[in-house]
Amino acid sequence: MKTLSFVSILTMLLGLTTVSLAGNSNDAKLHYVEFSQLGNPAEVLKVKTESARSLQSGEVRVKVLATPIHPSNLLQISGNYGVDPTLPSTPGSEGVGRVIETSAEVTHLKKGQLVLLVGGGTWRDEIVAPAAGFLPLPDLGNPSSEVIEQLSMTAVNPLSALLMLTSFVELKEGDWIVHSAANSSVGGYIIQLAKQRGVKTVNIVRREGLAKDLMAKGGDVVLIDGPDLAQQIGNATGNAPISLGIDAVGGATFTRLAQSLANGGTMVSYGVLSGQPVTLNPAMTIFNDIRIRGFWLSKWFETSTMEEKQAAFGGIIPMIASGALKADVDSRFTVSEIKQAVTRAAQRGRNGKVLIVPNAN
Amino acid sequence: MKTLSFVSILTMLLGLTTVSLAGNSNDAKLHYVEFSQLGNPAEVLKVKTESARSLQSGEVRVKVLATPIHPSNLLQISGNYGVDPTLPSTPGSEGVGRVIETSAEVTHLKKGQLVLLVGGGTWRDEIVAPAAGFLPLPDLGNPSSEVIEQLSMTAVNPLSALLMLTSFVELKEGDWIVHSAANSSVGGYIIQLAKQRGVKTVNIVRREGLAKDLMAKGGDVVLIDGPDLAQQIGNATGNAPISLGIDAVGGATFTRLAQSLANGGTMVSYGVLSGQPVTLNPAMTIFNDIRIRGFWLSKWFETSTMEEKQAAFGGIIPMIASGALKADVDSRFTVSEIKQAVTRAAQRGRNGKVLIVPNAN
Repeated sequence: MKTLSFVSILTMLLGLTTVSLAGNSNDAKLHYVEFSQLGNPAEVLKVKTESARSLQSGEVRVKVLATPIHPSNLLQISGNYGVDPTLPSTPGSEGVGRVIETSAEVTHLKKGQLVLLVGGGTWRDEIVAPAAGFLPLPDLGNPSSEVIEQLSMTAVNPLSALLMLTSFVELKEGDWIVHSAANSSVGGYIIQLAKQRGVKTVNIVRREGLAKDLMAKGGDVVLIDGPDLAQQIGNATGNAPISLGIDAVGGATFTRLAQSLANGGTMVSYGVLSGQPVTLNPAMTIFNDIRIRGFWLSKWFETSTMEEKQAAFGGIIPMIASGALKADVDSRFTVSEIKQAVTRAAQRGRNGKVLIVPNAN
Repeated sequence: MKTLSFVSILTMLLGLTTVSLAGNSNDAKLHYVEFSQLGNPAEVLKVKTESARSLQSGEVRVKVLATPIHPSNLLQISGNYGVDPTLPSTPGSEGVGRVIETSAEVTHLKKGQLVLLVGGGTWRDEIVAPAAGFLPLPDLGNPSSEVIEQLSMTAVNPLSALLMLTSFVELKEGDWIVHSAANSSVGGYIIQLAKQRGVKTVNIVRREGLAKDLMAKGGDVVLIDGPDLAQQIGNATGNAPISLGIDAVGGATFTRLAQSLANGGTMVSYGVLSGQPVTLNPAMTIFNDIRIRGFWLSKWFETSTMEEKQAAFGGIIPMIASGALKADVDSRFTVSEIKQAVTRAAQRGRNGKVLIVPNAN
């Protein structure tokens, strides 16, 4: 107790916590990532340090436990995303943290509580921000680090997969869908969520050696992209009508998926991994009534109601907590190791997601 | 009365008509158009003749008064349409006729009544077909030949224009839309129907000299297609948000129209006059939520309910009959002159629709 300041003692008496301040009383520096110009992430990202500052009214202090590196983060840092950030900026879209301090005005968050980080700028050891930037998780007892890591990936990929499966086409048990980048994190969630609904998946990948893994996740058909893809899909499904195609690749892959759809089918685009534009014969939209849509999670967060958000998270979180829905983790890095982390995240042939885990050794 | 046969007198006593049989008693040959192979319309179309045959149960005999040549007819004859016809086939999608004979079982059509020809195969002097192939027009008194010609174009272009304006996006007074091929027949109907709803139109054409005419029809802005089209549209509308783009050109024009739309805007494709595929950056669908659809009237006829059809025709016919909605007529040909007719219809720079008017001199 010797190290506690007067302020710490006072806030303890008021029923608040001082753990983080106490923990920082030895002036340990907190790490965070920042970039002040757009460019190659491994070059423009800098590791900075700061001292803990005291909370303002309505703020909470959250220790970051795990936060993923998404392709969209790398695209935004390099200036290739839909909207450029205001610079300087700390990247990171989501994660899991533990509340270590709350200001007096905050009533719905408590010390020790696990929260999802939904306010952005998550690539740091600690976040001090208004309480609205944190979504309390239901009581999960004492979750393992594996569950915490999986929960750190709740708000982007599982939600995207769920919304793309449910927002555009009404799928019934036994229906088929087709999706590209099936070995991606979103692809893995699509397979698992479709399987749980009895929806069959044609899983398109770009290289050999992935079929066994994707079938183990629940995939029904795994095919390698190529000029005859639509024909391959027809053969593999017995020409079953496919009403939904989900594409993250763009270019010829998008067109081939569209060609494999039944009349009235919908193509949903959520990424352009190939960097290639799509060539489309309008006759496909006119005579086959193919419908083309895009999906952008940021937009959904902006425009969906609180009820819609609760329903979506409420459907996802228990599945992740129970292990029914998960993603592979390739590797873990601390905030200080951000350059190695983004370099790894940009490599093809990874085996899952790269996480920033501030506590990792 | 001398020329009337016993059968004629009998049917007159029964309240039926024999005019057509009487009129054909001199064995005048009836002309019709037929093609038995796909190809250049001016080459593969043949003029044939037939004698009138007597009606079977449920059939009616209709004298064709006017029937248009649509680009879709020419595409189908040349084998470039969504579905190929069963050969041999008589072209023609719509028209106006007058009932000149009915069989006893037909109760909802009467001799002398004007009808829309909705059963296909309309490029002929007379049609004998089941009554379901004819849609009775409301009593219009004694309409002028101009009104009859306009009504002969009811079922394809005005309906397409109406459905594209109303089926995809909810437009309010003061909203803007953009459409290509604005000088086409569908384009003209779009301008007029939008104007009646207080919706403003950006009208895209491919050549100079059309602005005055399109403004007279009710257009608000007329622009010539080019690489800077999206910029031009923004300048001309004061960057007003545009929620609907309607394209019949394809290629770069489609893409430019899509680029001019507001977030969440819908592009509807109903033709590919350029013959060029569309190049599309998926980022446009992801980040700008641009939605791409196609419109095919044949599909609508197949899938819409009787109530929807009645509502659509009921909205269009009175406007055409009153002259509030009309298309330019370029020229008129008889059935026998079909080769000249289709040659004219395929020429650029026409000033309106080419009609087949069996009675024309």
